[in-house]
Amino acid sequence: MNETIQTIMNHRSIRAFKDEPLSEEQITTIVKSAQAAATSSYLQVYSIIGVKDPAKKKKLAELAGNQEYVEKNGHFFVFCADLNRHKVAVEMEGLTEDEVVDSLESTEKFMVGTIDATLAAQNAALAAESMGLGICYIGGLRNNLEEVAEILKTPDRVIPLFGMCVGVPDQNPDQKQRLPLENIYHVDEYQQDETKFIEQLASYNEDIGDYYRERTQGERTHTWTEIIATKMSKPMRLYMKDFLKRIRIPLK
Amino acid sequence: MNETIQTIMNHRSIRAFKDEPLSEEQITTIVKSAQAAATSSYLQVYSIIGVKDPAKKKKLAELAGNQEYVEKNGHFFVFCADLNRHKVAVEMEGLTEDEVVDSLESTEKFMVGTIDATLAAQNAALAAESMGLGICYIGGLRNNLEEVAEILKTPDRVIPLFGMCVGVPDQNPDQKQRLPLENIYHVDEYQQDETKFIEQLASYNEDIGDYYRERTQGERTHTWTEIIATKMSKPMRLYMKDFLKRIRIPLK
Repeated sequence: MNETIQTIMNHRSIRAFKDEPLSEEQITTIVKSAQAAATSSYLQVYSIIGVKDPAKKKKLAELAGNQEYVEKNGHFFVFCADLNRHKVAVEMEGLTEDEVVDSLESTEKFMVGTIDATLAAQNAALAAESMGLGICYIGGLRNNLEEVAEILKTPDRVIPLFGMCVGVPDQNPDQKQRLPLENIYHVDEYQQDETKFIEQLASYNEDIGDYYRERTQGERTHTWTEIIATKMSKPMRLYMKDFLKRIRIPLK
Repeated sequence: MNETIQTIMNHRSIRAFKDEPLSEEQITTIVKSAQAAATSSYLQVYSIIGVKDPAKKKKLAELAGNQEYVEKNGHFFVFCADLNRHKVAVEMEGLTEDEVVDSLESTEKFMVGTIDATLAAQNAALAAESMGLGICYIGGLRNNLEEVAEILKTPDRVIPLFGMCVGVPDQNPDQKQRLPLENIYHVDEYQQDETKFIEQLASYNEDIGDYYRERTQGERTHTWTEIIATKMSKPMRLYMKDFLKRIRIPLK
């Protein structure tokens, strides 16, 4: 197993960091690593915001559901899908916004922005982890994107997708076991055999049950399907479509 | 610069591969690397389909816009957002689909699926590249997802997002220069100074112009904003919203 694969396999989310800010050099290496990721048709449909201002970090931590580590870390990045840049670019070529609005407002370009930003983010995460730093993705930023957009002053057509805490780890949590490979990986066609699918999930449930039992001295015994049932029966962030429409990404 | 960051920085899309299929061990390492990526709230909202069948690969290559390397490579992966698994999981917990449909049909969960699949994909890409293999993402699969879904037999609520060719490189292309770091990376707030933004893009245009001039012996002299203007004035894949609705992801 080479060093890169070791770094990949060693991932766990870190939620407690030492009080050591990242150096400018570390930040630059992480951002350049993000930029080296593939990008759809060379469009580069994303931006990264590095948040240093303690007041902003505090507010973002509250908005993300009082996650203290959003405030206390070595650096906090926000990854955004960004179609604002492309409006400026086409205007430089003498086109009006109207001439490209069907592209900018499409579901397809929203997907491209989300994919581009996420490819960049995972490069950033692995670059950080390869330097001995820990990371944690913060999807909780999507709890309230109106306020997040106000704090980060993102213009129309820029979507803050998620945050990423980075810093020197102050904990060493266990890894969480993933779904069985056969459940995630299909050969030639999607596996439609529901009986087999349920068997795989049942066996996974047992492993996850053991994990929680060991970790909590028998107090918690969640299975994966229990976790999913609990989470899925509470629909989250149903304002999202309206927010996207408001910032002129109406998912046409 | 450590090995992982070297792998990250060395990325270029490879579009010609030697006729050497990946070993089962290589495929397993790549899929396990994908699975090690972070996943939103432990939901694991993605599936990976490895396509070996030459007839299927040929068809996918045509659908992706006659990209020969989709057919000729060491292995072809398709990364999918997958909310089908979660329907099965909640049914195992005695819930009906109706009780979770607001989650499954939300714009938010569509984002989670797209993000989860993409985090997994970028881990897969770097694992492959760290083993000396080359990769190329294939967004062209989204040209016609109805036919792609038919070939891969993906059920409702599974979205094939993009493909990835992997194999032993049979070319060594140049890297494409990215946007200036200051254009992608903002500190504390999104940079709203349009004059500065245009200056950055103009300077980038010069670099990109030089790149194409050198590469084509003066024949092509594209700038980045020219490329963007050309691409953005042709809206693509406008059927996407209808496709998502048809597979019961209506982006509510």
